[in-house]
Amino acid sequence: MKVILVYDINEKRVTKVLKTCRKYLNWVQNSVFEGEISEAKLVKLKMELKKIIHEDEDSVIIYTFRSAWYTNRETIGVKKGVQELII
Amino acid sequence: MKVILVYDINEKRVTKVLKTCRKYLNWVQNSVFEGEISEAKLVKLKMELKKIIHEDEDSVIIYTFRSAWYTNRETIGVKKGVQELII
Repeated sequence: MKVILVYDINEKRVTKVLKTCRKYLNWVQNSVFEGEISEAKLVKLKMELKKIIHEDEDSVIIYTFRSAWYTNRETIGVKKGVQELII
Repeated sequence: MKVILVYDINEKRVTKVLKTCRKYLNWVQNSVFEGEISEAKLVKLKMELKKIIHEDEDSVIIYTFRSAWYTNRETIGVKKGVQELII
């Protein structure tokens, strides 16, 4: 399945979260990852993230897409991470 | 159509971008908005954003979904903005 992952993490922990997400997904922009991932790997990623973040302070949102994916991804301004559409 | 909008904006301009996005979409998390929007309104939002941001420094990514929407949105940690699924 495909996912878009966005996070809002305390500065003390954000680098660890970034490095963890990078193992599984493509960095798109500050605190935004996307990519294709298996169910098992997504479970693993979530477990690793739960060990890092403080759930009363930090926030990670994972949008999952079983079938269709976004129709279009448009960037206004600086193009930072992955640019090709993952369809 | 439905959109997920994420941005990475210089601190000097981020409040203006936040207020502009709030007129059209639902705040979900720091620098993340989502919601249903017409083509015309999306064009208007983009024009307003282009007047605010410095395109050589700031970045706005707009994921558009013509048909399907995300299958699931899961939050790990603090639930900040809009929680109900917009399907």
